[in-house]
Amino acid sequence: MNIHPIHETMLSRVEREQALGQHSKVLWLTGYSGSGKSTIAVALERLLFQAGLVAQVLDGDNIRSGINSNLGFSLADRQENIRRIAEVAKLYVHSGLVCICSFISPTVKMRQSAADIIGADDFLEIFIDTPLYICEQRDVKGLYKKARAGEITGFTGIDSPYEAPIDPALTIKTENQTIDESTAQIFAFVSDLLKLQQ
Amino acid sequence: MNIHPIHETMLSRVEREQALGQHSKVLWLTGYSGSGKSTIAVALERLLFQAGLVAQVLDGDNIRSGINSNLGFSLADRQENIRRIAEVAKLYVHSGLVCICSFISPTVKMRQSAADIIGADDFLEIFIDTPLYICEQRDVKGLYKKARAGEITGFTGIDSPYEAPIDPALTIKTENQTIDESTAQIFAFVSDLLKLQQ
Repeated sequence: MNIHPIHETMLSRVEREQALGQHSKVLWLTGYSGSGKSTIAVALERLLFQAGLVAQVLDGDNIRSGINSNLGFSLADRQENIRRIAEVAKLYVHSGLVCICSFISPTVKMRQSAADIIGADDFLEIFIDTPLYICEQRDVKGLYKKARAGEITGFTGIDSPYEAPIDPALTIKTENQTIDESTAQIFAFVSDLLKLQQ
Repeated sequence: MNIHPIHETMLSRVEREQALGQHSKVLWLTGYSGSGKSTIAVALERLLFQAGLVAQVLDGDNIRSGINSNLGFSLADRQENIRRIAEVAKLYVHSGLVCICSFISPTVKMRQSAADIIGADDFLEIFIDTPLYICEQRDVKGLYKKARAGEITGFTGIDSPYEAPIDPALTIKTENQTIDESTAQIFAFVSDLLKLQQ
């Protein structure tokens, strides 16, 4: 006597969150190339993991080589890039996971479009505030040198603008602290938001 | 004295699987429109959930309205549809989750391309083998009627072919059993594959 057959009761986000013992959110890290976003994202993922939370980083490494491998760097392709990332992040949030997105996402409009897709309540904008001159000094991937030489065009901070977040949930000034310190700062900020009262 | 700073140790799939107590896999359900794929997928997701596993269904409802909302039904768009789905499923597998994909995916080539992206070891093809005449009798969404009337073209089974899987991991004959029975049959088959020995 099954009054409600199992196939009529779709698993809800709340059920998933309860089972995982966490609130699902998108932590959206924005900042210049070389600001330390992805390094911090990966470190944060591990800190959350060690605290028993379930998180997934989305960054250039797993997005540009996968679902967005057929996109270039035109304005339309950059918008489509962010749209798809936001849609994937939205799926993860529905799955109950914490999704850490690490993308330059240089304009207010671009990040707003991501927030609109994900939903404002689930979107936490985190500004990885590393001054451009430091990113350019580091130049880990040699991209700034190429951009200065004109070998890459439309490079954020060189010949394409970066608009800092207007009202970020959190700003991390990486200049005078280590990666671990920056990561711990984000962790301290989000851990209360992510932990379920059980 | 941190010899290995936390940010150098990217979280591996194996660590995630161990924490969740499961092997991550893609369960790819293929069959005609109206075969019961998505209903079974959703019921299976709940059964896995009740068994303590973490799974996520991808189907038309959350994919066509989201990441693939800018795709139509041309051959190129159908291929891109499957490509993106496979890429999302691959991300989920890396996150340690079980990803249940429910898509007509009518051709051998199309499903092979998904398997190629996901990786053969992580791709379990499950044939929801409901005869066309039954799917057409049910016609839950009224699509077969429209396809017969020529209002929809390229409809699988009417004016577009469906190629049954050549060597599926599992075939579910839904004709003489309930949704719950079909779901239980898949669950019985996959639960040993998904459970980690701990």
